Amino acid sequence: MNNFIAKSANIGQNFSIGHNSIVQEEVKIGNNVTIGHNVIIYPFTRISNNVTILDNAVIGKQPSNISTLTITIDKGLSPCEIGEGSIIGTAAIIYAGTKIGKNCFIADLASIREKCVIKDHVIIGRVVTIEYETTVGEYSRIMTHSQMTGNMVIEDHVFIGGAVASTNDKYMTSGKWKGPIIKSGARIGANATIIGGNTVGKDALIGAGAVVTNDIPDGKVALGVPARVIKDVPIDPAVSNQKK
Amino acid sequence: MNNFIAKSANIGQNFSIGHNSIVQEEVKIGNNVTIGHNVIIYPFTRISNNVTILDNAVIGKQPSNISTLTITIDKGLSPCEIGEGSIIGTAAIIYAGTKIGKNCFIADLASIREKCVIKDHVIIGRVVTIEYETTVGEYSRIMTHSQMTGNMVIEDHVFIGGAVASTNDKYMTSGKWKGPIIKSGARIGANATIIGGNTVGKDALIGAGAVVTNDIPDGKVALGVPARVIKDVPIDPAVSNQKK
Amino acid sequence: MNNFIAKSANIGQNFSIGHNSIVQEEVKIGNNVTIGHNVIIYPFTRISNNVTILDNAVIGKQPSNISTLTITIDKGLSPCEIGEGSIIGTAAIIYAGTKIGKNCFIADLASIREKCVIKDHVIIGRVVTIEYETTVGEYSRIMTHSQMTGNMVIEDHVFIGGAVASTNDKYMTSGKWKGPIIKSGARIGANATIIGGNTVGKDALIGAGAVVTNDIPDGKVALGVPARVIKDVPIDPAVSNQKK
Repeated sequence: MNNFIAKSANIGQNFSIGHNSIVQEEVKIGNNVTIGHNVIIYPFTRISNNVTILDNAVIGKQPSNISTLTITIDKGLSPCEIGEGSIIGTAAIIYAGTKIGKNCFIADLASIREKCVIKDHVIIGRVVTIEYETTVGEYSRIMTHSQMTGNMVIEDHVFIGGAVASTNDKYMTSGKWKGPIIKSGARIGANATIIGGNTVGKDALIGAGAVVTNDIPDGKVALGVPARVIKDVPIDPAVSNQKK
Repeated sequence: MNNFIAKSANIGQNFSIGHNSIVQEEVKIGNNVTIGHNVIIYPFTRISNNVTILDNAVIGKQPSNISTLTITIDKGLSPCEIGEGSIIGTAAIIYAGTKIGKNCFIADLASIREKCVIKDHVIIGRVVTIEYETTVGEYSRIMTHSQMTGNMVIEDHVFIGGAVASTNDKYMTSGKWKGPIIKSGARIGANATIIGGNTVGKDALIGAGAVVTNDIPDGKVALGVPARVIKDVPIDPAVSNQKK
Repeated sequence: MNNFIAKSANIGQNFSIGHNSIVQEEVKIGNNVTIGHNVIIYPFTRISNNVTILDNAVIGKQPSNISTLTITIDKGLSPCEIGEGSIIGTAAIIYAGTKIGKNCFIADLASIREKCVIKDHVIIGRVVTIEYETTVGEYSRIMTHSQMTGNMVIEDHVFIGGAVASTNDKYMTSGKWKGPIIKSGARIGANATIIGGNTVGKDALIGAGAVVTNDIPDGKVALGVPARVIKDVPIDPAVSNQKK
């Protein structure tokens, strides 16, 4: 086994752990938790009942500070929390100060920085990156390879396709950070780009490869580079599929 | 060394293994196999002769099931198989139910889900993701950072550039999954997007950043957002380079 | 602890190391170096003073050779070098033959292949990939999820947004490799694509999602697919911000 479990860690009943994993000081683990091989759990992390953490995941790490960075790192972060029934994928990385809700699925190689709030029933795809202080609402799904910037607000039942990019600095290097807002029920096509400071409206639909450089009103379809509104979103079962 | 090798694992001659690696129950390993450090090989995986598996790779993992997911996970998967002479990169992840052919190169941080078939002489670049039930034909190459969706068919001698995205749900959240088909010899430019249900024809060429929303005929060049056919692919050595 | 440290490794003062890490033969480590858990450092790697290497990082690995690859791998590489004060992120991968400068920040899951030169004060974001023989100048920043091709020249104070793609083979599979050149102070928007053989001029600004298929002159703004020059870059503090 060769696991390292700190004496001050508080472990619930029916605990399973693989080989070479590390559970550090003051970690609190609920009942029926399964931890894979080579997992690293940083001090003070709180893991609820029925959570699964797969191989090579790193949970609760502190952000790094270096003078080269343009944002200031907050080291006084609250512990990372993983909500009941959630699954953390292989080699996923979740920072301190971030809270994952219930029944979330964080896929392999995803990484989520500090001070994010991921609400219940969210799916974060493989290799997705989420920067600092971003919120993802209930039942939202962010597909494989998407890159979500800092200070972004993603509301409930949002669908973000694969390989979507986003920015929080409209002119790059301006130093004024403002992530996009994606309103409830909006859908963003694969490989689209959402520029900082803009809002994608409720139930709006952004086409694949579009570049959103302005606000998109509620319920509209927008396509192209730059994205232009072309029509209303058709009333179809697809939207209601998201809400069930 | 501190490796864990299950007693029921069947290991061939001239076997090399690093530190902290895990070879689980009933794994079958051929001759002249090299395994790095921190590698995890799940039960029943079959590794042929002359295979190299680099550090931190995870081979043969089962998919995770969670009620939040929109597809049903099949747990009765056949073992993961790695064909003769193939190399699996650092921190690559390959699921159970997937078969990698001979002389393939799966680069660092690539991940391939369940029920995929990767035929012989294929190159999968770094950080590439391939979803479930996708087939990649002989001598095809998928470059760094591309995201290949589920139920996709990539035929032989296809070239997929870096950071290409693809979808298998034309309207997002419709619940009807159909991956694109990329016919033999086609080439897809970097950062292009291929929408589900469409076919890119034999020897066709898709420009960088194009968004393919319709079928592209054999031998045509298509560019733009959305992609429009502009001319025939010139007869040049580039295509035949792929076929040698 | 269960670390493996080769007897021939040369370790400086005030050295800190986690669990399950591997420091191989002839590695040279300066003073005040911190190494996390599960880190793998390959033979002959040189790590300067005040460097931090986070969990699961792999430093100094050799490239793999396989007949399927189109480039020839050079195995006679000089050791990997990590400059003073730099931080290497969780699960980052840096190859032999590559040199990282002083005060660099290489974020989680980034990977940098052989023969690259990363100069001082550079930031490489999460999941960024850099291919072989690419140079990144002082104070340049490459944001999350970008994919930088081989033989590319990125000069000083360049800003490359998130999810940018680049190629070094204009026609794909032509076999003539020539990476783009990004001149000093240029800024590339998120999800843009830079085609091989082209130069982005000094202080030029490329819009998000643009596809650069020709040279872009110094100080110009270029947008769209394909990218067209539309105006001069406005004189604003943003550019000078890069130069301080």
